[in-house]
Amino acid sequence: MEELELEKIAEEISALLEGKNIPKLKQVLTPMNPADIAVIFQEIDEEKLPFLYRILPKELAAEVFVEMDGDQQELLIRAFSDRELHEMLDELYMDDTVDLIEEMPANVVTRILRNCDAKTRQTINEILKYPKDSAGALMTIEFVSLIEGMTVEQAFERIKRTGVDKETIYTCYVTDRSRKLKGVVTAKDLMLADSGTIVDDIMETNVISVDTIEDKEVVAKQFQKYDLLALPVVDGENRLVGIITVDDAIDVMEEEATEDISKMAAVNPLEDTYFKTSVFKHARNRFLWLFVLMLSATVTGLIIQHYEAAIAAIPALVAFIPTLMDTGGNCGSQASAMIIRGLAIGEIKPSDYFRAVWKELRIALLVGLSLSLVNTVRVFLMYGSSIGEQNIPTYMFAIVTACAMLVTITTAKFLGCSMPILASKIKIDPALMASPMITTIVDAVSVLAYFTIVTTILSAYF
Amino acid sequence: MEELELEKIAEEISALLEGKNIPKLKQVLTPMNPADIAVIFQEIDEEKLPFLYRILPKELAAEVFVEMDGDQQELLIRAFSDRELHEMLDELYMDDTVDLIEEMPANVVTRILRNCDAKTRQTINEILKYPKDSAGALMTIEFVSLIEGMTVEQAFERIKRTGVDKETIYTCYVTDRSRKLKGVVTAKDLMLADSGTIVDDIMETNVISVDTIEDKEVVAKQFQKYDLLALPVVDGENRLVGIITVDDAIDVMEEEATEDISKMAAVNPLEDTYFKTSVFKHARNRFLWLFVLMLSATVTGLIIQHYEAAIAAIPALVAFIPTLMDTGGNCGSQASAMIIRGLAIGEIKPSDYFRAVWKELRIALLVGLSLSLVNTVRVFLMYGSSIGEQNIPTYMFAIVTACAMLVTITTAKFLGCSMPILASKIKIDPALMASPMITTIVDAVSVLAYFTIVTTILSAYF
Repeated sequence: MEELELEKIAEEISALLEGKNIPKLKQVLTPMNPADIAVIFQEIDEEKLPFLYRILPKELAAEVFVEMDGDQQELLIRAFSDRELHEMLDELYMDDTVDLIEEMPANVVTRILRNCDAKTRQTINEILKYPKDSAGALMTIEFVSLIEGMTVEQAFERIKRTGVDKETIYTCYVTDRSRKLKGVVTAKDLMLADSGTIVDDIMETNVISVDTIEDKEVVAKQFQKYDLLALPVVDGENRLVGIITVDDAIDVMEEEATEDISKMAAVNPLEDTYFKTSVFKHARNRFLWLFVLMLSATVTGLIIQHYEAAIAAIPALVAFIPTLMDTGGNCGSQASAMIIRGLAIGEIKPSDYFRAVWKELRIALLVGLSLSLVNTVRVFLMYGSSIGEQNIPTYMFAIVTACAMLVTITTAKFLGCSMPILASKIKIDPALMASPMITTIVDAVSVLAYFTIVTTILSAYF
Repeated sequence: MEELELEKIAEEISALLEGKNIPKLKQVLTPMNPADIAVIFQEIDEEKLPFLYRILPKELAAEVFVEMDGDQQELLIRAFSDRELHEMLDELYMDDTVDLIEEMPANVVTRILRNCDAKTRQTINEILKYPKDSAGALMTIEFVSLIEGMTVEQAFERIKRTGVDKETIYTCYVTDRSRKLKGVVTAKDLMLADSGTIVDDIMETNVISVDTIEDKEVVAKQFQKYDLLALPVVDGENRLVGIITVDDAIDVMEEEATEDISKMAAVNPLEDTYFKTSVFKHARNRFLWLFVLMLSATVTGLIIQHYEAAIAAIPALVAFIPTLMDTGGNCGSQASAMIIRGLAIGEIKPSDYFRAVWKELRIALLVGLSLSLVNTVRVFLMYGSSIGEQNIPTYMFAIVTACAMLVTITTAKFLGCSMPILASKIKIDPALMASPMITTIVDAVSVLAYFTIVTTILSAYF
């Protein structure tokens, strides 16, 4: 639903809550989508939230709960009786329960665990042992498993009997008696087959699966490459321990893109949303990189200082530094962004290094020549035929700036292309080799090149 | 499969091709996943590709075809007889056919259209009329539709009869006789219901759907918010015309993130992959922004030039400019990246403007004070007790730089936060208001602030 529409409903609900009109509230909320209800709940007065939540039918209530944010979840759990908590937990899928436990403070977690049955508690503890960001930590254990040798009819019976609590029934996993994964069969295959067919005959045996400790980024890539709806997770002995569904994979893709964008802007990725992260945490996540980059920029400053004499003689020289630094930074940022993204989505592989460098160098030449030309025009328009007290011929200054520009752009494109790829070769996240890092290096190189050229070509003037 | 593994198989296949060992080739390829086969095909000698392709069973061949890149698809189509082309097109889903037509050169398109049956040709023409990037252009028309009043048993019969050619059978769409969308029912609901139940009684009537002209970005967001597997597309009169499946939505999400990252780095988004885009196109996509930003940087240069006298008197002043410019650029880039991404994923809304500014200003204060402190230490370490021939006391220079730093960081965070949000308010893509654009403005502001402070506080020295 549109944001505006939801706001209107939220107002209506607030009014109904005021009047404690329970039947009407039920009537408005029950047909709505859980994700929309969760959005509306954000607009509701905190004190009234538990009351409103209790109006929802049990199953819908649990679905809404999963969509709510951590603060509201905590508020509700604190308001729940043990029995209510127990009932709600019964409705949750295992991966959602684990997410909840990871987000709640310790005393709430204790209460949650106390209200799970023993078997669930054991499973939760096992899942919590998997490394953060691993397939094991992401998976759910509510899947349909079939046993080798079953007929399609038996498979349907099993789905009917157990399917209601499963996160997906559209991909069914066929195992042997020792839980080893033998194949997958989709609900489509089952529905289109004769009821007497043995599932072994229609199952796909070339199964795409991941290990419990596989990184979630790899998991997300599998979904994308193979257009999967679910992916089985197996242990070291190929025993099926869980599945990951496509909705969770989509969330991982979004998180990964957000993390990359943060790193590319020299920010440590946030663990929470923008507004829920405190000012202090934001500052901390940004400070370290700024600190390192600021000190690195000192090098550029020292280079400039080294040419004090030239600057004192021709102050106009300094006016070109921002143009040079900004253009270098932008060129590096363009190349690195293209390469980092290409690496992230698999369009560029580390083995493509020389191909990419060759491409960037040719781009640098084209862009460099065009910009030098523009710059020459700019220089003549700004300065006329000569510059400064020394009457430096403008064409000489134009040559100096054009050369400096070419060196800067080539360096920027070369580093912007090389650093992310080389980083990925030595298993450093390429996203760290983005604009800020590259700009700092390009600045130093370009200023050095500029003054070297200046002191060579214009030496007669100071 | 892992890249290395695929490379090994590719080598094996090349060897088998050399020996024309068809039975063994069939045996190796047939159990493989289409996406993997397409990767292997990239390693195969172009001349031998049509021969190898013809070895695949018809259905698998079409699945592989969809996963291949445009150049190879074109090569195959040119090698196909009309009959082969016709057979292959028969196996494709409508959305894949449309994608193919959009990518092929005109003479190939003519051949494709000639080999479609009349009805398909008409549908293709209708789909091609939808705006690029709209839901209509993205959708497929192979869905399962049920009619109001059907029983679950009748629904199953219909699925069995027509389901084999549908892109998904897991979400079925219930319409009235005039094709108006009335509800959706999942395969899960059907499988868990009694066979005599009327579908109207179990269908969800609160249907999430999009209009044919809705932007694909909105489409992708719906998938994410509601955890959908498929989304119905309706025309202005709520008649069901197609569906979009989650695998296509995932591709859209990836494209959108890539586009945002490109724009944030001042590159016009590419239409093709990095390597398939020509050097000239790359250069063109990068030049315009560089041109604009280079000319804008001239303003900063002019400001510096305006303070020629100060620079000539105290050249050491210039050494601080890179530190100031880089820090400003990085701070702006951090804020804008956080805000742009927050807007893209819906964590930040345009109406949050003042909340965001207030947050960024406090972050700026924390970061600014910390960096000023670090900078003061740096200044004392570098210069000792006095600077330059004029013997400017270092503490005075430290005060000047600290003030300039605070002004720069505050401006950077303020603009980095404001510009994307204000852009989104006036319907400009916030991703354009990223690091390069903000850096250029911050540079001018910070250099101006710096020299204003310098000439005020240090005026006694020149």
